[in-house]
Amino acid sequence: MAALDAVGLPELADDLGRVETELRRAAASSDSFLTEVAQHLIEAGGKRLRPALVVCAAYAVTAHRPARAPAVTGAVAVELVHLGSLYHDDVIDEADRRRGVPSVNARWSNVVAILAGDYLLARASELASSLGAEVAGLLAATIGELCRGQVVELQHLFDPGRSAQRYFEAIGGKTAALFGTACRIGGMVSGAPPPVLDALARFGTHLGICFQIVDDCLDVTGTQASLGKPAGNDLIEGVYTLPVILALSRRPELADRLGRALEPEEADDLRQAALEAGGVDDALAVAREEARRADKVLAEAEGLDPEVTAGLRRLVDDLVTRRS
Amino acid sequence: MAALDAVGLPELADDLGRVETELRRAAASSDSFLTEVAQHLIEAGGKRLRPALVVCAAYAVTAHRPARAPAVTGAVAVELVHLGSLYHDDVIDEADRRRGVPSVNARWSNVVAILAGDYLLARASELASSLGAEVAGLLAATIGELCRGQVVELQHLFDPGRSAQRYFEAIGGKTAALFGTACRIGGMVSGAPPPVLDALARFGTHLGICFQIVDDCLDVTGTQASLGKPAGNDLIEGVYTLPVILALSRRPELADRLGRALEPEEADDLRQAALEAGGVDDALAVAREEARRADKVLAEAEGLDPEVTAGLRRLVDDLVTRRS
Repeated sequence: MAALDAVGLPELADDLGRVETELRRAAASSDSFLTEVAQHLIEAGGKRLRPALVVCAAYAVTAHRPARAPAVTGAVAVELVHLGSLYHDDVIDEADRRRGVPSVNARWSNVVAILAGDYLLARASELASSLGAEVAGLLAATIGELCRGQVVELQHLFDPGRSAQRYFEAIGGKTAALFGTACRIGGMVSGAPPPVLDALARFGTHLGICFQIVDDCLDVTGTQASLGKPAGNDLIEGVYTLPVILALSRRPELADRLGRALEPEEADDLRQAALEAGGVDDALAVAREEARRADKVLAEAEGLDPEVTAGLRRLVDDLVTRRS
Repeated sequence: MAALDAVGLPELADDLGRVETELRRAAASSDSFLTEVAQHLIEAGGKRLRPALVVCAAYAVTAHRPARAPAVTGAVAVELVHLGSLYHDDVIDEADRRRGVPSVNARWSNVVAILAGDYLLARASELASSLGAEVAGLLAATIGELCRGQVVELQHLFDPGRSAQRYFEAIGGKTAALFGTACRIGGMVSGAPPPVLDALARFGTHLGICFQIVDDCLDVTGTQASLGKPAGNDLIEGVYTLPVILALSRRPELADRLGRALEPEEADDLRQAALEAGGVDDALAVAREEARRADKVLAEAEGLDPEVTAGLRRLVDDLVTRRS
């Protein structure tokens, strides 16, 4: 678990272990088939970055760390939202693989993936409500943001004129909102005052933007072996992300090769062209700027545990330089 | 609005009018396309039965009706759950029409219907959280039940051996749970004590089972004109409902014609055969028994307003004899 190693806090391993146990329990139901499907991607593992953020944000607020059980519950709720959205994303993208295993839609069907995704989102909401109405309301609003971000993205599929602004609008909803909420919920379960909650949420939001840009760069530079899913998928699916948008600003003629469905080989050529045009370097510079902002929020926030914020800043470094 | 006429309480019209306004508001977002899609089925109308149950249950608890604004909020949350699940159901059933208009998946795409359904469910959870953690937890658990009921149904598609028990397990989750929750939430926002909440939930659950059985009978006996969607769809899709299950118990040889995809003409023949075998009459007898149980719960519950319970009992009568 990369997040764990980077943060370097021994109690995080304990709490993320609890998150794993509770994730499986939360996905269980009285129907054994639904349980199997709902646990499928949990079993496949994952970075568990969002749960780590919830737990670390809870630690950061109080050195005594009294809120570990609620922090674990919040962490599970946030990860279930992420997982539920992945089930639906894979239907939307017609993805065959995820985290090195067959996607739920590929292994069973779209129908099963839709229902199991709904189930995971519902379980997330139920757990959030056990932390109080405010957490439940925040998580629900964040799920709404996820949907909105996805719908914004949909409206610019295969659009070579997609602007960086529209890109940031989409990832703000589909990724950064949940990162921000993860950090805010961590603060809420530790009883942080509003200015600290706002700082934690801003930290998470910058980190989420950074994370998504790096993810989109990896889709250009990565391989199926390194990613656990096919590389170049965004280009094939018509999602033109920041590295492509920035490559187009340097080499506008590349737009002629976009705007339509691509074969994997054509997509590979375009990935290479976007890389050579400097799109990935430019996008990573933006990601590093977001990482710097995330760092700065932590450095300036008052009343946070310095040992924990140092761990979070190592996590930021780790995410911006990651290869998978 | 049939529910409204049957109940016969003048203030219900006001409150259901507020529900319409608030439904549209709740489905709105900063993205105009998402707003259009999320409001699509709201605009198409509907019985608004579940919101009427929330509001009437709230009235039933207190003759002074002090909780009307929270009751409207609860009503909107419950209807949004229903609407969100319809968006996903129509993807699952590949339905072309719903409530006399094109379904969202047919008008736009499956992807749009999945995301907009998720959005409506998220908005429902957000509104529920404004009524407190307990309502939010209950609604989330109910969404989980909806999914479980659907998954149970999926596992017996095209299964001529589907038992009545498995049928009741499926509709208990996919329909009755939300009816029960609608009534319980109405009681909760009016501050009813636990025994009254339990009675209201039992009433709603029996009514929900009754409602679904009648719905399934209408799929056998109805027409596209009367239903606003094609009749015979369940048979075509391989969902063998109570009238078919009971027809098979009288004429087991009909099973030879099931277990595979049917053309609309074959489905029409089978609908006729199920009707002639007495499957619909038998199923409607079960529905009437559930209606009687719903009635009995109200008659025996203490502390409910008799004018309101009389209205609810008229609603039960209306639902069991409905033609659409």
